[in-house]
Amino acid sequence: MARPIEIDADSLRADIERTGEFGSVETETGRGRTALPMDDANVRARNYLVDRMEEVGLDVRIDAVGNIAGRWTPSTSDSNAAPVVAGSHLDSVPRGGIFDGLLGVYAALEAVRAIRDSSVSIERPLEVVSFTGEEGTRFADGVLGSSVAAGELSVEDALELSDGDVPLGTALEEAGFRGTGRLDASEWHAWIELHIEQGGHLEDAGVPLGIVTDITGTTRGHATIDGSADHSGTTSMQARQDALVAASELVLDVEETANEIATTGTGTAVGTVGRLTPEPNAVNVVPGSVSMRLDLRSVDQLEIDRQVRAVENSLDELERERGVETSLEIPYDIAPTQLSERVRDAVETAASRHGTETVTLHSGAGHDTMQVANVTDSALLFAPSTGGYSHSPKEWAEWSDCAVATHILAASLALLASNDDQHDTDQ
Amino acid sequence: MARPIEIDADSLRADIERTGEFGSVETETGRGRTALPMDDANVRARNYLVDRMEEVGLDVRIDAVGNIAGRWTPSTSDSNAAPVVAGSHLDSVPRGGIFDGLLGVYAALEAVRAIRDSSVSIERPLEVVSFTGEEGTRFADGVLGSSVAAGELSVEDALELSDGDVPLGTALEEAGFRGTGRLDASEWHAWIELHIEQGGHLEDAGVPLGIVTDITGTTRGHATIDGSADHSGTTSMQARQDALVAASELVLDVEETANEIATTGTGTAVGTVGRLTPEPNAVNVVPGSVSMRLDLRSVDQLEIDRQVRAVENSLDELERERGVETSLEIPYDIAPTQLSERVRDAVETAASRHGTETVTLHSGAGHDTMQVANVTDSALLFAPSTGGYSHSPKEWAEWSDCAVATHILAASLALLASNDDQHDTDQ
Repeated sequence: MARPIEIDADSLRADIERTGEFGSVETETGRGRTALPMDDANVRARNYLVDRMEEVGLDVRIDAVGNIAGRWTPSTSDSNAAPVVAGSHLDSVPRGGIFDGLLGVYAALEAVRAIRDSSVSIERPLEVVSFTGEEGTRFADGVLGSSVAAGELSVEDALELSDGDVPLGTALEEAGFRGTGRLDASEWHAWIELHIEQGGHLEDAGVPLGIVTDITGTTRGHATIDGSADHSGTTSMQARQDALVAASELVLDVEETANEIATTGTGTAVGTVGRLTPEPNAVNVVPGSVSMRLDLRSVDQLEIDRQVRAVENSLDELERERGVETSLEIPYDIAPTQLSERVRDAVETAASRHGTETVTLHSGAGHDTMQVANVTDSALLFAPSTGGYSHSPKEWAEWSDCAVATHILAASLALLASNDDQHDTDQ
Repeated sequence: MARPIEIDADSLRADIERTGEFGSVETETGRGRTALPMDDANVRARNYLVDRMEEVGLDVRIDAVGNIAGRWTPSTSDSNAAPVVAGSHLDSVPRGGIFDGLLGVYAALEAVRAIRDSSVSIERPLEVVSFTGEEGTRFADGVLGSSVAAGELSVEDALELSDGDVPLGTALEEAGFRGTGRLDASEWHAWIELHIEQGGHLEDAGVPLGIVTDITGTTRGHATIDGSADHSGTTSMQARQDALVAASELVLDVEETANEIATTGTGTAVGTVGRLTPEPNAVNVVPGSVSMRLDLRSVDQLEIDRQVRAVENSLDELERERGVETSLEIPYDIAPTQLSERVRDAVETAASRHGTETVTLHSGAGHDTMQVANVTDSALLFAPSTGGYSHSPKEWAEWSDCAVATHILAASLALLASNDDQHDTDQ
């Protein structure tokens, strides 16, 4: 008797809610989650995922940078065939929500479970992957584990990345997540990441699934401004080199430039100073230095380059006019990404067979898929955000939408792993 | 045989250097000191002071808010007479220097030691005092212990002040510095604080001692700006309520207003945003909220009031134009202070007898003396700063200047405590 792919929505929800309890924080805007790479909450989430993978019968492997992979090799498949892989990440921003990352990991796990328990026959292994350090809140500026899996960053360099206190290698070791080898995404047949949209397009359109065509490029800068730390009462206004006043000019310049480009160009440009840290940061001291993290994006690389040049010009002007010293480093620079037509077509086919409406859109957020797409045919799917909140305790997705998206993910993986996948030649 | 008052410059230096080692931090601009109220470094400094006071033979008393007083009642004195008191504080700003506060405490101790070992006869007890929490880096916005000693702040309210984590009362208790009673400055015959200038006037004038006529008033504000924390990639420029961009406008407005007033008024106005803390302060999140500490000063209260009104206007404008919510509290507000002619005259007399040149000047920095002067005749003396650095590891005073100032301090205390003090009637 044919057993169709059936998603257990309750199990998916339980896994996400349970993981959301690790690092749970009460805030003025509701209950959020803080799980930075290799902190206690993140390690608990990792151990829970490993347990769940083993319950589902996956072969679990941890690579040298802590990426977690769980593989199911069905008896009908060629165990040497390139696997079809899905997943996302378990880390969060400080006070983030419970869907960002977790949905993609547990939807992948539930999809594999549902395919295994169905009568659908597939010819390739399936794999569920959780990448280390997607958010860029510790050790690196983001997509850490997927950079290694895509061969963009070496294992050796990754392990030496420090949070200012301890290197990643040591943190992994202490948590029991320093495995061996390197997850190599170039060996995968296809990759799909399901993610919460983190914007309002799907909700506005009333459509339960988004298929991403492009991911914006993201350039991140570390800017520093050095002035002079002096007593705020005895140092006259003329005698000051106030690093925070100079930094404030830069913050406003970044906004002004992004506004200008956004109204005249592709309409996707955004520029943010998300992190700003004055030193010594005391009420009665003129700030002596400020370090800042800038985040500049667009689907058009030229619009990112314009923003970087504007930052350089602002810093030069601050040096001339305020006598401060400045520096700018660009430790993170990922070009805009176009996603695979072959994999997108498989998703379209799966959605159409299931009668699920989809829209295409671009992603303003970076994702591990940016890295994976450089070496493997990849797709990025969005489930609707309620209210469009993201990186906030108010981030939310309806459980019924999560279940629908997980079903299409499962059907797409099955299609890509089966003989029914006629899209190989489309490339 | 007459034994004059002789300052042991080496002992003074040793006490300051030894205390400077507690909380010592290496920085790019040299070795600094971080000793916040009741942190480990501050507690070690306190214990060292108590030991030194006992070595000098003082009767040590700790009051309920941790103010430390050491009294010497010479056999020639009336033990019930109002004492003549000198001192300062042991806490520092983060990465501050070793003279701010420490000079005043250890100069007072050395002055009393030198008077005791001289043949000078005095009629009043002498007291060395170190006030709790002058700098305003923890528990309160500054001059914490002296506010209690001046009756401005009750012991009960002071003990409940929290650093956000622990109340002062608990911190005192854990450190063994929660004593009993209240040091009452209104019972003192006179008060003198010696302090490093924290500016360049004395060095420029080539004069080893400054006698302060006025202390600027200081108003400190806590401003908050609440916007919306959203994903920095998916939130378009138009959809943002970026609290850090709004805060940057306020920082620039504070500077602009102070610049305007400083060029048109008494020339003493300064305005600073010394502390600024964005939340969540992550590279990929549009800042959702910012809290700021403002410090607004002038010797003319009207110039402070103008600065406060300008801040209120800026916040109103940010609410209208950026849709953010704002708040402003003024937890600390001290009017400009004029210092006692009687005590200043005693210092002038002592300096003149010793052949030491002095200048009068105003103080741009607040000091515990602001509080004490409300209830007791008070003077504030400055030793020259090398390079004018303050609240910085580069803060410095020449040891020879410290010794000269300590000598004049001792001679002034002796004069005020003797029958030679004919200034009582000058008031």
